[in-house]
Amino acid sequence: MSKQIPYKVYLTEEEIPKAWYNIRADMKTDHRPILHPGTLEPMTADELSPVFCTELVKQELNDKDRFIEIPEPIRDFYKMYRPSPLVRAYCLEKELKTPAKIYYKYEGGNTSGSHKLNSAIAQAYYAKEQGLKGVTTETGAGQWGTAMSMACGHFGLDLKVYMVKVSAQQKPYRKTVMETFNAKVTPSPSDTTNIGRKMLESDPESGGSLGTAISEAVEVAVTTEGYRYTLGSVLNQVLLHQSIIGQEAKAAFEKIGEYPDIVIGCAGGGSNLGGLMSSFMADKLAGKKAPYFIAVEPASCPSLTRGKFAYDFCDTGMVTPLAKMYTLGATYKPPSNHAGGLRYHGMAPILSQLYHDGFINEARAIVQSDVFEAATTFARVEGNLPAPESAHAIRAAIDEAIKCRETGEEKTILFGLSGTGYFDLGAYAQYNDGTMTDHIPTDEELELGFSAIPKVDK
Amino acid sequence: MSKQIPYKVYLTEEEIPKAWYNIRADMKTDHRPILHPGTLEPMTADELSPVFCTELVKQELNDKDRFIEIPEPIRDFYKMYRPSPLVRAYCLEKELKTPAKIYYKYEGGNTSGSHKLNSAIAQAYYAKEQGLKGVTTETGAGQWGTAMSMACGHFGLDLKVYMVKVSAQQKPYRKTVMETFNAKVTPSPSDTTNIGRKMLESDPESGGSLGTAISEAVEVAVTTEGYRYTLGSVLNQVLLHQSIIGQEAKAAFEKIGEYPDIVIGCAGGGSNLGGLMSSFMADKLAGKKAPYFIAVEPASCPSLTRGKFAYDFCDTGMVTPLAKMYTLGATYKPPSNHAGGLRYHGMAPILSQLYHDGFINEARAIVQSDVFEAATTFARVEGNLPAPESAHAIRAAIDEAIKCRETGEEKTILFGLSGTGYFDLGAYAQYNDGTMTDHIPTDEELELGFSAIPKVDK
Repeated sequence: MSKQIPYKVYLTEEEIPKAWYNIRADMKTDHRPILHPGTLEPMTADELSPVFCTELVKQELNDKDRFIEIPEPIRDFYKMYRPSPLVRAYCLEKELKTPAKIYYKYEGGNTSGSHKLNSAIAQAYYAKEQGLKGVTTETGAGQWGTAMSMACGHFGLDLKVYMVKVSAQQKPYRKTVMETFNAKVTPSPSDTTNIGRKMLESDPESGGSLGTAISEAVEVAVTTEGYRYTLGSVLNQVLLHQSIIGQEAKAAFEKIGEYPDIVIGCAGGGSNLGGLMSSFMADKLAGKKAPYFIAVEPASCPSLTRGKFAYDFCDTGMVTPLAKMYTLGATYKPPSNHAGGLRYHGMAPILSQLYHDGFINEARAIVQSDVFEAATTFARVEGNLPAPESAHAIRAAIDEAIKCRETGEEKTILFGLSGTGYFDLGAYAQYNDGTMTDHIPTDEELELGFSAIPKVDK
Repeated sequence: MSKQIPYKVYLTEEEIPKAWYNIRADMKTDHRPILHPGTLEPMTADELSPVFCTELVKQELNDKDRFIEIPEPIRDFYKMYRPSPLVRAYCLEKELKTPAKIYYKYEGGNTSGSHKLNSAIAQAYYAKEQGLKGVTTETGAGQWGTAMSMACGHFGLDLKVYMVKVSAQQKPYRKTVMETFNAKVTPSPSDTTNIGRKMLESDPESGGSLGTAISEAVEVAVTTEGYRYTLGSVLNQVLLHQSIIGQEAKAAFEKIGEYPDIVIGCAGGGSNLGGLMSSFMADKLAGKKAPYFIAVEPASCPSLTRGKFAYDFCDTGMVTPLAKMYTLGATYKPPSNHAGGLRYHGMAPILSQLYHDGFINEARAIVQSDVFEAATTFARVEGNLPAPESAHAIRAAIDEAIKCRETGEEKTILFGLSGTGYFDLGAYAQYNDGTMTDHIPTDEELELGFSAIPKVDK
C-alpha cells in the first residue's frame, strides 16, 4: 500500500505564494475591455480612478504581467489564516463507496467565514496606502461585507456597507459581525442615495438586489471626499487576488504527488471558481495536461447555463461600466424562495470568456433542495458545515464521485469549500423542517431580464 | 535577529498524541471520589454504568494509568480538524505595544465551534462500540450540544439534547445546527421528564438552568432502553479527553524552542482550562519548571473565586452523584443579564483540588463588559471573532501583557482560544449597541445558593 496521504495537506508559511497570478496575461482571446456607460468606449485608468483606488485600477487593466507581487503587509495578514488546508475527504469517499479521491480546498476557516477575505485585505490595504478615509461596498448574503469589515477593521479604515435588505432581515447577525469590526451597515435600497430613493419610490416594499446595492455603494463612493468603492467578485482584480487559492492548491497537490482530474467550483460572480482554478487553468492555457473544469450555479440564477454572452451593466441602477459577460440582465432577481447565495445576475468577464472559449468545460445548474441534501450529507460525515454557496460544488463533486463508483474510475476530484454555513442557518432550518421549495425560472421569466440588456455593437 | 517564529505552529498529523494524559495519576492529594446521592458512599463502577458507557466509567474512576490510548477511529476523526494551531498573536502584541510574546491555542476552527468536540467524539465512539442506540445530554450556550450532535451524526447514533430554555430562545440557530446533524433538541425545563414537569409546576416561566437540563438528560438516559448520558465538562473523563489540547500545545512550543511563563484559560465547568494546562501541569506536579496558571471566570458566576470547596450535587434536580468541588450551590443561577457562557455552578473536581492545593496559582473573576471589550479588540487586530467564554482568557492575557509593558518583562503568555463567537452574536449586538450591563452578585445573593449545598461529613 502506498504512503497514506494525510487528511489535511498544509503548506508552510514560507510556501504561501508571494505573487498573485494574473490569468489575463495567458488568455488567448482578447479580454474585452469594460465600457463607459455613457460613451460606450473602453474606460481609461483616469475614468476609473474616482471609483477605485489607483493601484487597483492598474490591476484591473493589467493584461500583461503574469505575476503581481503581494505587498508584505498583505502577506503578513494572510499568515494569520493562510495557507488554507487542502483536505482529503476520506469519510465522504467511504460514505459514497467511491473509488474516486475527493479533495477540497477549505477557505471557510477564518472569521469572515469565506474566501472573500483574500481580496478584501488587498483592497483595504491599497485604500489605506493611498491615504483614503474609507471605502464603500455592498453585500448580499453577507460574506463579502464581513470580509471587508474585518479587513478595514484591521487597517483602521472606515467602511460603509450596503446590504441587500432581504438578506439583512434574514441574517441580522451578519450585521452584528460587521458592526463588531466597526463597519456601518445600511439595508439597501435606502434613502441615503439618489438611486436608493428612486428604487423606494417605485417599490417601497423592495427587498433589494445586489445590483441595487452596488449602485448605492458606487454613488456614495464617488460623491464622498476620500472614499472609493470596493467589490468582492466579478472584477479582474478580485480574480487576481483570489488566485492564491488555486496556487496554494496546486502546490499542495505537488507535495503529495497528485494532480486533479476534475476541478469543481461554485460560481456566483466568479471569485471562488476563478481563484480555485487559477494555476490549473494556467496549465490548460499553456497546452499542458489539465483538469476538466465544472462551474456550478443555482438553477434559480443560471447566468452561465441560460444567460446571454453580452455587454451588460454590473448594477441595476445602470451607473457602473458595462462588461462583456454571461448575464441574465441587470434587473434580474432570483425567485423569492431562493435561500442560498450566488445571486448575481452576471459572471466575471474572465470566466465568461473562458467558458465561451471552451476552457471551462461545463456549467451545471442545481436546484436548492439538491444542494442542501448534499450539504447535510457532507456536514454529517466530514464534520464541516458548508455555506450553501459551497454546497453547490459539493453536490457536483458527490455526483462525479458516484459516477466513478459506477464506472470504477479512480478519478481525483478537487472542489472548493469556499465558506462556512454558520451564517446560513435560516436556510438550513427551512431544509430541516421541509419548507424549502425549488423554483426553476421559466423562459418567460428570464425574458424580462434579457430585455433590459442594452444593445451594444461590440 | 533570531529566526522568525511563524504565525501558526502546526504539528504534523503523525505528531497528534496517540494517548490521552490522565492527570489524576500524578496528583499528590487523593482525588476525592464521587458519592452516591442516596448512600453518600463512593460510587462503584456498577452503580455508574446505568448512567455512563462502560468504558467511560472505567476512565472516570481511573487514577492509576498516566496515559490511556486513543482508539484509532477517534484518532482518525481528530485528523479531520486537528492538530489545532498554536498561534502567535503578533498583531495583538503590536497593538498593546508589549514586550510579551502572546500565543493562543485555537480550538474554534471546527464546525462545532469549540474544543468540546475533543470529548464529544470520544463519548460517541464508546457509546457506538457498546452497541447503544443513542445518548442524551444537555447544553447551555450550545457548544457542547453542537459538538455532541456532530459526533453522533458522524457515528450514526441517536442524540437527545436538553437545551437551557433561555439559551434556546436566545440562540435559535444553535438548535438548527444540532438538527442538521440529526439531533433531537428539547428546551429545558420540559414536560418530557418528571423533573422537568416538577420545575415547570413551581415556575411555569422558568428559563431553565444547566443543572436542570442535566437532571432531565440523566433521567431520560437511565429510563430509556439502550441509552446512556454524556456530559461535556466537569467529569474526569472529559478532562482526560481534553488533555490533547495541552499535549499538542506543549509539543508545538517544543518545536519552536519556547515554553510559556503564564497559562491562562477560561473556566466554566473546567473542560477548557483542564485540557489546556494538562502537560504543563504535569511538569509542575513533577516539580519541574512550570508556568503560572490563571483560571478566569465570569464575575456573575464566580465558583472558584467566591464558591465553597464542598461536596455538592452536579445538577439542580439532585439526582446525580455528589462531587467535591468549588461550588455556588446546585440551585445557583447567574443573573439574567449574563450574556456569555461559563454558567455552571461548580468546577471540575480535578481543577478544584489543584486550585485548593495551590497548583493553579490564581483565579480571577471578570465582568462581562470588560470581557467584550477585550473580545472586540482581539477580533479587530487578530481577525478572529472569539466566543465570549474564550474572551475571558483574552481579557486576562491582555492585562498580563500590559503589565509586561509596564515592567519591561518579555514573558511568554499562552491562552486558550476555546471557541468561535459566530453563535454569540446576540451578546455582541448588546455590547455594540451599549445595552450590555454588568452584575456582580452580592454576598446575600450567593448565600441563597450556598444554603442548598448538602452537609456531607467527608
